[in-house]
Amino acid sequence: MNGADRLCDTLLVNGVDVCFANPGTSEMHFVAALDRRPAMRCVLGLFEGVVTAAADGYARMAGKPAATLLHTGPGLANGLANLHNARRARTPVVNVVGDHAGYHLPFDAPLTTDIDSLARPMSHWLRRCTGPDDVGPAAEAAILAARTHPGVATLILPADSAWGGVDAPAEAVAASVPAPRAVPEERIAAAAAAIRGAGPRAGILLCHEGLRAGGLETAGRIAAATGARLFAPVQIPRIEAGLGRVPVTKIPYAIDLALACLADVDVLVLVGAPEPVAFFAYPNKPNRLLPEGARALVLAEPGEAIGDALSVLADRLGAGAPLEVARPAPLEGVAEGDLTDAALSRSIAMLMPEGAIVIDEGLTTARPVFDLLKGAPPHDYLMLTGGAIGMGPGAAAGAALASPGRKVVALQADGSGLYTVQGLWTQAREKLDVVTIVFSNRAYAILQREMRNVGVNEFGENARRMMQLDDPAVDWVSLANGFGVEGAAVETAEGFHAVLEYALNRDGEGPFLIEAVMA
Amino acid sequence: MNGADRLCDTLLVNGVDVCFANPGTSEMHFVAALDRRPAMRCVLGLFEGVVTAAADGYARMAGKPAATLLHTGPGLANGLANLHNARRARTPVVNVVGDHAGYHLPFDAPLTTDIDSLARPMSHWLRRCTGPDDVGPAAEAAILAARTHPGVATLILPADSAWGGVDAPAEAVAASVPAPRAVPEERIAAAAAAIRGAGPRAGILLCHEGLRAGGLETAGRIAAATGARLFAPVQIPRIEAGLGRVPVTKIPYAIDLALACLADVDVLVLVGAPEPVAFFAYPNKPNRLLPEGARALVLAEPGEAIGDALSVLADRLGAGAPLEVARPAPLEGVAEGDLTDAALSRSIAMLMPEGAIVIDEGLTTARPVFDLLKGAPPHDYLMLTGGAIGMGPGAAAGAALASPGRKVVALQADGSGLYTVQGLWTQAREKLDVVTIVFSNRAYAILQREMRNVGVNEFGENARRMMQLDDPAVDWVSLANGFGVEGAAVETAEGFHAVLEYALNRDGEGPFLIEAVMA
Repeated sequence: MNGADRLCDTLLVNGVDVCFANPGTSEMHFVAALDRRPAMRCVLGLFEGVVTAAADGYARMAGKPAATLLHTGPGLANGLANLHNARRARTPVVNVVGDHAGYHLPFDAPLTTDIDSLARPMSHWLRRCTGPDDVGPAAEAAILAARTHPGVATLILPADSAWGGVDAPAEAVAASVPAPRAVPEERIAAAAAAIRGAGPRAGILLCHEGLRAGGLETAGRIAAATGARLFAPVQIPRIEAGLGRVPVTKIPYAIDLALACLADVDVLVLVGAPEPVAFFAYPNKPNRLLPEGARALVLAEPGEAIGDALSVLADRLGAGAPLEVARPAPLEGVAEGDLTDAALSRSIAMLMPEGAIVIDEGLTTARPVFDLLKGAPPHDYLMLTGGAIGMGPGAAAGAALASPGRKVVALQADGSGLYTVQGLWTQAREKLDVVTIVFSNRAYAILQREMRNVGVNEFGENARRMMQLDDPAVDWVSLANGFGVEGAAVETAEGFHAVLEYALNRDGEGPFLIEAVMA
Repeated sequence: MNGADRLCDTLLVNGVDVCFANPGTSEMHFVAALDRRPAMRCVLGLFEGVVTAAADGYARMAGKPAATLLHTGPGLANGLANLHNARRARTPVVNVVGDHAGYHLPFDAPLTTDIDSLARPMSHWLRRCTGPDDVGPAAEAAILAARTHPGVATLILPADSAWGGVDAPAEAVAASVPAPRAVPEERIAAAAAAIRGAGPRAGILLCHEGLRAGGLETAGRIAAATGARLFAPVQIPRIEAGLGRVPVTKIPYAIDLALACLADVDVLVLVGAPEPVAFFAYPNKPNRLLPEGARALVLAEPGEAIGDALSVLADRLGAGAPLEVARPAPLEGVAEGDLTDAALSRSIAMLMPEGAIVIDEGLTTARPVFDLLKGAPPHDYLMLTGGAIGMGPGAAAGAALASPGRKVVALQADGSGLYTVQGLWTQAREKLDVVTIVFSNRAYAILQREMRNVGVNEFGENARRMMQLDDPAVDWVSLANGFGVEGAAVETAEGFHAVLEYALNRDGEGPFLIEAVMA
């Protein structure tokens, strides 16, 4: 048994049985060890950004981490943007990065880099194996860190730690994962007092367990009893939404809308979320989104027993009856003519099947969908969490792998989707039930808006060339076909509706892509 | 005038007039400033890995740096792999990375990361602008660092340094770039003594100026006078090769071949190259490629006056007449039948036009081309330098932009090309004269070889799924078309020859891609 074998056994005995991978020469012993263990499902990404996004999407749905397999510093670098999103989502990831054999590093071979320096900004936890006998303990520590922090645990695996023999190995044993830490009583008391004092000017910002059906139900009872309003962050890692679930107000992305959304809040209780701040700084606009003089106080942080804290808080506030939610009027009638944002948003909401998993990297498009879906059958809704675009194709693959039998609907901005378009291939190879809707506006539309915020309304040649994705326009159906994914392009509202209906009813036939050419 | 204006003016006055970009919100003021300066050519990449590879390819041919424009930590992260290649090639790059306004960083907004930690491993030089008035001096220092080190100079531009007003700005003035540092006399004397002592058991490992026509001519005279042998590194940043130029022996990639190549060398004089080491460590194989007991000694390092040092060394050794080079027999006859490595290598060498620029990321395929091209018309040959795959499509675009009127021929492994396939779009948009030949073996063939080196000859399901790019096979013509690039797939040797001839004679019509489906 070598270190790589030990790593695989430690992963498997701890329930980490999916490995998203793009290996290189320094990981050949790890690959050989994986090959000896058919219980591990190895999923190839054609680019590391796909690998890490898939690990993120997988764990958000599976509720447990996958492993990655990345090749030295450059391979890690390629995966960092989506590890950044996972870090912001507090997604557990066991991020395994191969490195040169330790004794080879002083020779500064071409692929040598400072992996620790690269990994640290996107990792909650970081450790480099010191030898074959250290691999088992280090892997166990990585899994524990990923699950309990929770977040990205990066394990650097030098080739000689992988290939070296392990002395007298005992059988790998599952680590006992401690229960989430209990929230201290004083925080619950302070939150209760603050909500009581502010009444309808109190807000509760929910995240993580607070946005699952149970947490939402509890938060709804608090709202019913106190008048407090329920919010979700600008970028939601995962929410259980739809009919029968307590609806929340998502804080908008655009700074002026975000400020308006929170204008009437005197006190904001943070339940697993940080205090909301402006996504970017703008000259003469505030950093914080809460009104001046308003305060934020923490009830619970990620890794703590968020659901329990909400329940105790509800009891403390005498919350009893569930929040009464008016049933939204059903959406009826298919739009015709130009494929506008409003038209496609309505169709998406009307057709969303029960149990769907929405991956939202729509950015400037389909913003109405989140609210329209409050009247749709129960579903999960996952968003880009760190602002590092290019999460969609990989995250959709990962979520689908974690959720057999459920339909994944990826809302995909075109500019962002192009970052990791290779993820379509993984969807095809794994025959995943993903319907991707590409919003083809052929521009970095978000930047065009931001340029106007900067005061530039007339774009010259250089600005145009950096923000328009035309000349030539990307043919998404051709790209999808190139990666083995069926697809269709549509240019009318009724055409979009019909093709989306077809795609959503197409079961067990693998992924499908719709290029929605926007009016 | 704001800091961003100052940055643009400083770049332009110093001859940096191409900016490869993928901007985000924090760079909107920089974009607006670029938009006010039509003298700057802004080139969009649909992914940052394309941007940085293009900056590398551009500077290798232009002999001066381009600027990049990357968006915060994740944007930089996406570009790091190809900055790594640039760093290993010692390519000058002015790498501009936008960041949040300084006063926004403490709020830890979603896109906040430790950019310095991410940038350091891939940068020769790193500086963060401290305010609008610091932008001009910092940009000048970055340009100087990129040119004199030479290498990757990373300049972090916080949004408030870009948008803030500059006090009493004087006109930007070109920095005076110091001449390359002279090589100390003792190194020249030591190299002369070593070469004299070892005779035909002396080797000269050339890089940078040593691999340009002039340096090669000088090295050839030394070889003629002393019997010393001339080598080039495993991965060559740029060599001027073909008929009329002094040929060199390229050290092979595979460790056993590399060891054999240098087996008869007692002393190796390093001319701009580091001592050759194994690309990876392998159990029971050496780290260094020189035989035990052999020594390496440095004549010149990058940033020093390499050509001058070679000339003085030649004088010292009494070198006079040029090296006589036997003219290789012309290649004749087109292969037929299966499209083998040998067949396509011959066709590529036979058809290579004068003045071509070869971008070699062929990895396991087309290895014979380098030597076959010794009989081809004069051309430049650029290789992947850091082992971070995915350089090809972007580097080809950058090299073409720097070299109007010359044909760029990209030799592209399929797995590597998929990393940054978005680069094809930049080739299409800029209507660049690039012919890409994708070696479609539908596998990470290099890893299959390395697995055998590890002792695994029978691949199970997991190994197969991590190394085969089939199921589904990627349709490269469809991908190319999706990005606006014409293409054709061929499966026979004669078909390949005919299509390559067509593509190379297709002038001024933009890029073309050939998928060579390997036998």
